[in-house]
Amino acid sequence: MPRLNRIVETALYVDDLERARAFYEEKLGLVPLLKTGTLHAFDVGGQSVLLLFKRGASLQTQHSAGGTIPPHDGEGPLHIAFGIDAEELPAWEARLAELGIPIEGRMRWERGGTSLYLRDPDGHLLEWVTPGLWATY
Amino acid sequence: MPRLNRIVETALYVDDLERARAFYEEKLGLVPLLKTGTLHAFDVGGQSVLLLFKRGASLQTQHSAGGTIPPHDGEGPLHIAFGIDAEELPAWEARLAELGIPIEGRMRWERGGTSLYLRDPDGHLLEWVTPGLWATY
Repeated sequence: MPRLNRIVETALYVDDLERARAFYEEKLGLVPLLKTGTLHAFDVGGQSVLLLFKRGASLQTQHSAGGTIPPHDGEGPLHIAFGIDAEELPAWEARLAELGIPIEGRMRWERGGTSLYLRDPDGHLLEWVTPGLWATY
Repeated sequence: MPRLNRIVETALYVDDLERARAFYEEKLGLVPLLKTGTLHAFDVGGQSVLLLFKRGASLQTQHSAGGTIPPHDGEGPLHIAFGIDAEELPAWEARLAELGIPIEGRMRWERGGTSLYLRDPDGHLLEWVTPGLWATY
């Protein structure tokens, strides 16, 4: 049986691409990999790629020299979790406070990890989580 | 500046949790980490966690001894990409054909990677991608 190694790309759909870019790039410090009029892609720690699609702009099949990308799109306040080092939790709390980003929820997991929950400008529920949530993390 | 290390959790929202479980666990071979009446979580290669939420079941703030998880939910055919080894691409193509899962699109990237696109039972656009798409992958 062949294997799925990891989730390489995670997508969020946003109403205002520039507003989302400013949040993820300037406030959170993610490094851009690609910017088009309908998609901004960001590196997350060299391990994951966060795709921000302009909502409604990926509803047509895209044909190019390289092949075909089928349609997709999304609504609603989606959820993703970013892994952080436990030692950096206080620095993140200070940074989020400085940025005026409220912490909407907080969890202490049985395995010892801590989660902070906050919103991006489109209302997506973002989680900052230290190791100790899952058997694998 | 503190760092985001990677995306640990990626969430999809599904209409039928059992149908989605059968697809991801039995057909794709993902290993379950957690199963509740509204959430199934799967390990992806020890690197990522795929969360399948019953659509509409996470719209209330959840309070527990550990803290508070704010609401989230999603609609639409979302997109995620799974990383696979280039050497396993033929085995995956054979496996998907055997499962009767059609390949809806295919891309050859400038950096040398190949993508296959297919749908899960809820219409989410899944991508199988070999290394050579992003500067980081």
